[in-house]
Amino acid sequence: MTTTDIEDIARRAQEAHAAYSRTAPEARARALTAVAEALEADDQVVTIAQAETGLSEARLAGEIKRTAYQLRAFAETVRDGGYLDVRIDTADPDFPLGPRPDVRRCLLPAGPVLNFAASNFPFAFSVLGGDTAAALAAGCAVVVKAHPGHPQLSDRCASLASRALTDAGMPAATIQLVHGQDEGVELLRHPVIRVATFTGSVRGGRALADVAASRPDPIPFFGELGSVNPVVVTAGALRERAEEIVSGYVTSVSGSAGQLCTKPGFLFVPVGHGLGDALRAAAEQVAEHRLLNPAVSHGYQQRRDDVLGAGVDVVAEGAVRVDEDQNAWATPTLVRVTLDELIAGRDRLLDESFGPLSVVVEYDDLGGLLPQLAQLFPGNLTATVHCATDEISDPQVGALVQLFAQHAGRVLIGGWPTGVAVTAAMQHGGPWPATTNDTGTSVGSAAITRLLRPVAFQSAPQELLPEPLRDDNPWGVPQRRNAV
Amino acid sequence: MTTTDIEDIARRAQEAHAAYSRTAPEARARALTAVAEALEADDQVVTIAQAETGLSEARLAGEIKRTAYQLRAFAETVRDGGYLDVRIDTADPDFPLGPRPDVRRCLLPAGPVLNFAASNFPFAFSVLGGDTAAALAAGCAVVVKAHPGHPQLSDRCASLASRALTDAGMPAATIQLVHGQDEGVELLRHPVIRVATFTGSVRGGRALADVAASRPDPIPFFGELGSVNPVVVTAGALRERAEEIVSGYVTSVSGSAGQLCTKPGFLFVPVGHGLGDALRAAAEQVAEHRLLNPAVSHGYQQRRDDVLGAGVDVVAEGAVRVDEDQNAWATPTLVRVTLDELIAGRDRLLDESFGPLSVVVEYDDLGGLLPQLAQLFPGNLTATVHCATDEISDPQVGALVQLFAQHAGRVLIGGWPTGVAVTAAMQHGGPWPATTNDTGTSVGSAAITRLLRPVAFQSAPQELLPEPLRDDNPWGVPQRRNAV
Repeated sequence: MTTTDIEDIARRAQEAHAAYSRTAPEARARALTAVAEALEADDQVVTIAQAETGLSEARLAGEIKRTAYQLRAFAETVRDGGYLDVRIDTADPDFPLGPRPDVRRCLLPAGPVLNFAASNFPFAFSVLGGDTAAALAAGCAVVVKAHPGHPQLSDRCASLASRALTDAGMPAATIQLVHGQDEGVELLRHPVIRVATFTGSVRGGRALADVAASRPDPIPFFGELGSVNPVVVTAGALRERAEEIVSGYVTSVSGSAGQLCTKPGFLFVPVGHGLGDALRAAAEQVAEHRLLNPAVSHGYQQRRDDVLGAGVDVVAEGAVRVDEDQNAWATPTLVRVTLDELIAGRDRLLDESFGPLSVVVEYDDLGGLLPQLAQLFPGNLTATVHCATDEISDPQVGALVQLFAQHAGRVLIGGWPTGVAVTAAMQHGGPWPATTNDTGTSVGSAAITRLLRPVAFQSAPQELLPEPLRDDNPWGVPQRRNAV
Repeated sequence: MTTTDIEDIARRAQEAHAAYSRTAPEARARALTAVAEALEADDQVVTIAQAETGLSEARLAGEIKRTAYQLRAFAETVRDGGYLDVRIDTADPDFPLGPRPDVRRCLLPAGPVLNFAASNFPFAFSVLGGDTAAALAAGCAVVVKAHPGHPQLSDRCASLASRALTDAGMPAATIQLVHGQDEGVELLRHPVIRVATFTGSVRGGRALADVAASRPDPIPFFGELGSVNPVVVTAGALRERAEEIVSGYVTSVSGSAGQLCTKPGFLFVPVGHGLGDALRAAAEQVAEHRLLNPAVSHGYQQRRDDVLGAGVDVVAEGAVRVDEDQNAWATPTLVRVTLDELIAGRDRLLDESFGPLSVVVEYDDLGGLLPQLAQLFPGNLTATVHCATDEISDPQVGALVQLFAQHAGRVLIGGWPTGVAVTAAMQHGGPWPATTNDTGTSVGSAAITRLLRPVAFQSAPQELLPEPLRDDNPWGVPQRRNAV
């Protein structure tokens, strides 16, 4: 793709944005719904996705359901209008600091968005995934940089969406697709692009975040990068439900072959837990699962060799088998270290393993573990505490939850971090290196805020105000008048 | 100051933050009010500020009133609790994507904040200014990097605030002060600092933004940098109220000797406006005003020489006089160019002039001006339109307002951009180079959001939830349950 092509894409994005950003909520909501319907109606996408990613038909069908739900949920967010954060402060001649003019503020579409798609969710975090849905909901034209792991699926999804948007009366270039890393970087530097989103590796995300920050005009870059999702199991929880914890853990580690950003990478259990045999047995019952693509497979094998060579105890060795088509198939690998060994080997052991590998860490007591956790895990998408019912009031458990709340975006009490609910209260993001910018979420309706910017209008006659700020409130959005 | 001192400051900030961030709203609101009262009660600050900045007693007294109001307004924001954006999604066994757990999300204090103070508002944008008030309201400990233009005032403000906070039961290190550029940069790199705020020049702000972005763990940096605040006057507005526009413009340009980030730097008027004599007469009536300090004075004189040497017509020459104490005193300088001359001379003419200089630009017609404005003024804090009452429905005026809304944080219809109302709907921020990050505001209650980060709790028993997320809602904050 030439620089001229990139210029064309940018120009089309700008033109599409100018029209799309002014659409009324109902029209925009219908357009989102039309994209959801088009995705559900397509009879090819599952087959193409299976071939390109190795994910199972059931998983992909579920992912399409989730992706369509997400688009429809954002349609409701658009209809509701609360996300606009409308504030209307009427003129006040008696304001304590002198007469105050009429000032009205809301969030407006930030401008064309560039979305770098992920490999591991070919629907939910790719061309039609959460970042695209959020951008479309916000009223922004979006350019998606396709993930090289599923190029045909990306093309098909982009064209079905573009067609659905056109049929719904929106500009065709409201969504566009580019392939190629250089093309993505060139667009990220383009003045037309006002916000970028990304889901992927720490290395890739950091490089792109640096590009965004070093532009002549820096732009916000929301990258969802690496997370190892620590889980702490107390002695009480083990006494209460060891079997359930073993099975939940192994299921969460091995689902989608461990290629999930919320996979529990570290399970902390008290010394003397006696779970070794149960963990091995559970891991050995997991059927082998194909890894996404050769790059993921290569990275996982290298990472697994590193961990196995780091002086750890092997709980379940697992395997990686390469088939005649050069696809790799993996079964879970579980290893065990003490807390002291983890601290000593942190440079080798603490990285994310993108695949079905997880580390069981044995600790002496919660009091000794707590101060180490903040050092070992400065930023994660999730952090989980498993405690017994009668430990909920234990001050150490309370301290653990407070500590995790400072170092993760989502804190779970019981349950497992994989399976991220698409809902208004979800937070999918966290301190570095979980994200490049932990003021946003990339799952749930709050994700829309990243694609908006605030603008205030002072002393404007009604005719010159955007609809959400008008007294007659033609869109029926929530308006806060003279709030604090 | 040694590295050990910096480490001590960081450690104290972290300890203070740990305690302060858990305070209940009422206690925090009282602490903010106590700081406001301590500032108002101090009998030395005006005298010190006058000597250090040259600003008038009346202006400084007004600024103290504004600063105290701001602290009290944030106390009300804290009491209200709406800023926490509480979302509670209760468990739903029938959720379309499978059973949904209980998920609750709110904004929590981001961590210790570093605030780089400005020179031109020794109260309202300095040690006890908006960024500090917002950080304290958010529940964050704050370290202020003092502006070298008013070191004694900074010391006095920091110690009166620290005393007031201690008396209100808060940790003394909830607010700390450092002097020195190197010290500021060292702290900006320190892992304890989680967010930084800044008000100042484009060059200084960009350098610090780059430091924040290049940390091993990048942090959000909210810099309010340069703005030239274009004002477009239509032919109709001139017919309606030329005299009022001339006097409003000159007052806005010359107030506080033009050392305001919202000073109108460019006034667009139709050719044949005939305002020359009136503008000169109004400018010549303005008494000379001291510039803040030798650095500002030097920068302003250089900038004024550059503009006067750029082939412009002089409307009112003004002057800069240096007194026996090396303080510079200025009267307004107004120059005139055509739109074509501005475009041709953009590299020399478009920079911000930090002092009482403004450029009158003559344009032929709105239709020709509009496409140029977006190129000339990509990002500003404010943009103003003066039109006649019967032009409000003119499509070109509508297009101008829409264009300005894309390139400025605040759009005014009539009036002048100086004098920023402290209110919930205010937006003080805008696209680069107005700010490094235009998702936030540094004036008004929405400023608190920059100092918070979202955290979700999943399946947490009531005892382990932070107060805002509990069903019994002990702080009485607004809670949105099962919202879209």
